[in-house]
Amino acid sequence: MIKAGIVGITGYVGEELARILVQHHQVEIKTITSKSYAEQKYNDIYNNFNGIFQATCEEEDLEKMANDLDVIFLALPHGIASKKINKNILDKVKVIDLGADYRLNDKDIYEQWYQTEHCSSELLGEAVYGLSEIKREDIKHSRLVANPGCYTTCSILSLYPLLKEDLISRNSIIIDAKSGVSGAGRALNIGTHYTECNESLKAYKLLSHRHTPEIEQELSIAAGEDISLVFTPHLIPMNRGLLTTSYAILNQDISYNDILDVYKKYYEKEFFVRIAKEGIHPETRWVKGSNFFDVGFTIDERTGRIIIIGCIDNLIKGAAGQAVQNMNIMFELDEKLGISHVPIFPA
Amino acid sequence: MIKAGIVGITGYVGEELARILVQHHQVEIKTITSKSYAEQKYNDIYNNFNGIFQATCEEEDLEKMANDLDVIFLALPHGIASKKINKNILDKVKVIDLGADYRLNDKDIYEQWYQTEHCSSELLGEAVYGLSEIKREDIKHSRLVANPGCYTTCSILSLYPLLKEDLISRNSIIIDAKSGVSGAGRALNIGTHYTECNESLKAYKLLSHRHTPEIEQELSIAAGEDISLVFTPHLIPMNRGLLTTSYAILNQDISYNDILDVYKKYYEKEFFVRIAKEGIHPETRWVKGSNFFDVGFTIDERTGRIIIIGCIDNLIKGAAGQAVQNMNIMFELDEKLGISHVPIFPA
Amino acid sequence: MIKAGIVGITGYVGEELARILVQHHQVEIKTITSKSYAEQKYNDIYNNFNGIFQATCEEEDLEKMANDLDVIFLALPHGIASKKINKNILDKVKVIDLGADYRLNDKDIYEQWYQTEHCSSELLGEAVYGLSEIKREDIKHSRLVANPGCYTTCSILSLYPLLKEDLISRNSIIIDAKSGVSGAGRALNIGTHYTECNESLKAYKLLSHRHTPEIEQELSIAAGEDISLVFTPHLIPMNRGLLTTSYAILNQDISYNDILDVYKKYYEKEFFVRIAKEGIHPETRWVKGSNFFDVGFTIDERTGRIIIIGCIDNLIKGAAGQAVQNMNIMFELDEKLGISHVPIFPA
Amino acid sequence: MIKAGIVGITGYVGEELARILVQHHQVEIKTITSKSYAEQKYNDIYNNFNGIFQATCEEEDLEKMANDLDVIFLALPHGIASKKINKNILDKVKVIDLGADYRLNDKDIYEQWYQTEHCSSELLGEAVYGLSEIKREDIKHSRLVANPGCYTTCSILSLYPLLKEDLISRNSIIIDAKSGVSGAGRALNIGTHYTECNESLKAYKLLSHRHTPEIEQELSIAAGEDISLVFTPHLIPMNRGLLTTSYAILNQDISYNDILDVYKKYYEKEFFVRIAKEGIHPETRWVKGSNFFDVGFTIDERTGRIIIIGCIDNLIKGAAGQAVQNMNIMFELDEKLGISHVPIFPA
Repeated sequence: MIKAGIVGITGYVGEELARILVQHHQVEIKTITSKSYAEQKYNDIYNNFNGIFQATCEEEDLEKMANDLDVIFLALPHGIASKKINKNILDKVKVIDLGADYRLNDKDIYEQWYQTEHCSSELLGEAVYGLSEIKREDIKHSRLVANPGCYTTCSILSLYPLLKEDLISRNSIIIDAKSGVSGAGRALNIGTHYTECNESLKAYKLLSHRHTPEIEQELSIAAGEDISLVFTPHLIPMNRGLLTTSYAILNQDISYNDILDVYKKYYEKEFFVRIAKEGIHPETRWVKGSNFFDVGFTIDERTGRIIIIGCIDNLIKGAAGQAVQNMNIMFELDEKLGISHVPIFPA
Repeated sequence: MIKAGIVGITGYVGEELARILVQHHQVEIKTITSKSYAEQKYNDIYNNFNGIFQATCEEEDLEKMANDLDVIFLALPHGIASKKINKNILDKVKVIDLGADYRLNDKDIYEQWYQTEHCSSELLGEAVYGLSEIKREDIKHSRLVANPGCYTTCSILSLYPLLKEDLISRNSIIIDAKSGVSGAGRALNIGTHYTECNESLKAYKLLSHRHTPEIEQELSIAAGEDISLVFTPHLIPMNRGLLTTSYAILNQDISYNDILDVYKKYYEKEFFVRIAKEGIHPETRWVKGSNFFDVGFTIDERTGRIIIIGCIDNLIKGAAGQAVQNMNIMFELDEKLGISHVPIFPA
Repeated sequence: MIKAGIVGITGYVGEELARILVQHHQVEIKTITSKSYAEQKYNDIYNNFNGIFQATCEEEDLEKMANDLDVIFLALPHGIASKKINKNILDKVKVIDLGADYRLNDKDIYEQWYQTEHCSSELLGEAVYGLSEIKREDIKHSRLVANPGCYTTCSILSLYPLLKEDLISRNSIIIDAKSGVSGAGRALNIGTHYTECNESLKAYKLLSHRHTPEIEQELSIAAGEDISLVFTPHLIPMNRGLLTTSYAILNQDISYNDILDVYKKYYEKEFFVRIAKEGIHPETRWVKGSNFFDVGFTIDERTGRIIIIGCIDNLIKGAAGQAVQNMNIMFELDEKLGISHVPIFPA
Repeated sequence: MIKAGIVGITGYVGEELARILVQHHQVEIKTITSKSYAEQKYNDIYNNFNGIFQATCEEEDLEKMANDLDVIFLALPHGIASKKINKNILDKVKVIDLGADYRLNDKDIYEQWYQTEHCSSELLGEAVYGLSEIKREDIKHSRLVANPGCYTTCSILSLYPLLKEDLISRNSIIIDAKSGVSGAGRALNIGTHYTECNESLKAYKLLSHRHTPEIEQELSIAAGEDISLVFTPHLIPMNRGLLTTSYAILNQDISYNDILDVYKKYYEKEFFVRIAKEGIHPETRWVKGSNFFDVGFTIDERTGRIIIIGCIDNLIKGAAGQAVQNMNIMFELDEKLGISHVPIFPA
């Protein structure tokens, strides 16, 4: 049994992680911590755990956790993990960080986008970007995994094969992204007050959403040269689910089936990637409650563009599910263990 | 491995059953049937099953299924099962009917409420009402289980201990019930067209909802005498979840703790029943995606009444989950097998 | 033109009042105040007013407002109005208080339920309970109107004729009430965070909701003797709309038509009260965006009970609309002026 | 008083038209027709009209209507109006068609996209495309107005000034559009069954939505040359509201303020167009229940693109409201009459 700890278990990502790990047959949750709810029983905060999970939130003691545990999941706001993690800890325990601190390879870019100092930039070289399907081999040998953001996961997986195979123009990429409200977390905010976002729709953080540099970094690596793209997130009045509509100009006249072969080349063996049939477009309802990434595409011959639709459950493949997928990889377990749920519908 | 068949797999109850059984380690789904979608691949209808479940819907052949299978689940509109099931079939296979045909003990009451003839009333004596927590022993030895309705499950479990212990006045019961829209099924209807029920609220089928005689039958058995009660269902703009607010006059001056002891007497050992702490009231979000029934109550000393709040996921404990619970009981498996999911939140 | 002021214009009730009054042909909004948003342009807070209403929020100066205006609307949390209003102010200006401070006739009951001192209880005798259809004559001559709560309006209008005519048992009343989330206001709260209440359902404040004494007070007056009833509010995942399902035991064997005549006696001439046809039950979607109160009922002969369904738009007939209706009455305008909108559907 | 008739009053567009015209001081609705509900009282179909509007649906008799009325509104599925309207009718009555039949100037393009014959193509030259802000002078003298589609209105108004002033590259336009479910109408369909679209998100009709040729036609006229663009509609789980996120490459290095001046040039005097402040992006909640079109934009210097966000209430500015705006123009009334509602929030 893998002994696991969750730091920051009372946010939605922490809670989803708890839900998955409680049901994971190879994991025992030994320590859970919360700054705001220390000393409280977890199931008093999240009543869904009544009768199932009796742990009490503790004050965080990372040293002790490093000594006692096999893996620590961090589900914290940005800027905190970089103060807590160091090589001493990594010598003792594997760390999967669900926050942003180790996702960007470049300290300067991090500090520019997050407007805070990075306190352990010496680890940036070691940290592995935890997009499981793409970085599997690196994850396997890593001590520190930077779990990708939700928008990022869906965007990169949508475009990766096209860029690796040089099929689209690097300067033509537009990602119009839409997310359910759980992506905004549990902290109270007028924008996520029920009556302010229910039955409404908006774009937000135009040109300034922090997942942008992350997407650009990974797609630039795929393309072999720097990419600048437009990324526009929208808030959708629903709890869960994330969909990206990506647009790019094709570099050549190429058939649907040829592109399909490219997607198959990269994803056919991936259990968690499902390529839609021609003419069918992914919908968030078909991935809700699961770790699947669904993708489909269509070619617009009139304008020479390809349109790619990708879908995930933002709290699972976009956060906690992928973190557990990474853990499974790191500990050489069956990668699907504990995260092979059939999507729940209607839900 | 138990060989199972699902008749009527393309309704929401059938689909939820498929989702649960696909993940059940002791079950193999051997046959699925659908009148409307015969010959079609199931995952083309429900894309959530893509990459997971490759079966094709067949025309129903109950004889063949009885010969080949260990258990048949029927998820059909009322009036059909009673034409299909007979002793010959029951000699060969166990049947769990998720429809209404075998729930009422009295043929006349059935025919009055459902306005259709009952074609196998000779089986009504044999059929066991499948409220797992209450009829466990009978279910264990049954060949034909009549799985309860969603409103019924929540209503009966809320009131059963109070009537068994003669704590409430039999003529004082009012059940004000509220259900998410999935309870209305997948058949197109103006009342469940998105824009007709979203952002609105209504009571419906006042005094005429067909779960009424079912609730009265089982509570009358519990009470030892005939009960007439008021049952008012309401449609709530959400996908899943069902909550009942039940009101009754207490027969005596009795404390909260004494009533709590009564609930514990009946439910303390029941994994799927969770009694809320004093002052906490069940909410549907804490049971969504699970087989739990959550219950809480409060006493109004001013009016001498007790108010009981009960919650279930209508498609799980209110339908497919309880059906699998009954199957586990019938086949002497661990009762929790395949249905012990932690409720998913926020979802 | 009536010169009006709104104190507390940045809550939802204040905002709805602004929306109605901006379009009211006999009213000019001269002063708007907000504690939290003083000095800010109102349409920067509520962008729906862009291009329409250019006022700036001021610090409140009730003395000055009393001198300058004809009517002041107070849309404040409880406990504040009672500190601000006095006879000196009422000598100069009419006041319509949309808060709770002058609704209860009895200072002790107020202080018990609201857990705060009432600072101007000498005005309780003068204040008129502003349920327009029932207190019209008193409102006409009043200087201080206590506008009813949302649950209260719907509950009282549902039951008033039955109690006036002594048709129901006074101790048998149960009001199972359901409200959209806007009733909880704009203040941030975990319970009204989108992902915490969307797609869920709960009862709340059982036996302790502050609209209870208000309902009991007015229904006791109607009945001519003290009434204790059960009132259970529920939170429904929708923005607007409020529905009450009321239950009572009939005092006699009485026909549907005889009761219909009673409702007609009280409401037939009331523009804002619409009695549903037999067999049709009010739904919140048919009153949304309007000042209508829709009511319907059914008789349960088996249990001797009547079930009454009432519906309002909680922010209009349940708050701002009724306040304007009261203003129209006080200033001897056509009672429908500015509030005769057709309900908007689907919305 | 203008005598008006509504053909097809029982769809959502017809119903919204009824709601607006019932409250319009210069209009009397003389005739309403419905194929499916002939002989039925309108308020029995739409209970929101109870107590307000007592008309009965008739069988359609266009000849008679032409003789008796001043204006006829057609709210019909495509392909029907073109069979009914002819010069004889137009000699007698003004016609505003809210369907698609007279929107496209080219019969062949119509027949290609709608897969049906156009039966009165001789009127295509006469019909005026009813985008009020842009075609006002033509509308004024027209007998036949083709009211634009909802997506079209929002898309064209967003991009028109940029194309008129040659500021964007004609081949670079991508419109990622999102609409609430009322846009899909009232006809029953599995895609708009509550539980199939609630809490989910999808793109649909990729490259094949029928508003595409309409947008291209009008933007080509604005640009002075043919435009091909990408238009991708998405279905959002909410009743009302439509938002377009448009992307284009700027032809030159140009400042925010210079573009703002261009928008002001075209829209500053338009009551129903509201330009957002810099940094603020339109949201559908701020236009709900109104005839406003809100627009805002941002410039991405990194990629040389402009992003324009536009918002409307799809049933008002996107259909019935604009139809009444056009009627006001045609009859030389104040253009705002009957449609100057303040957006309703929260709703």
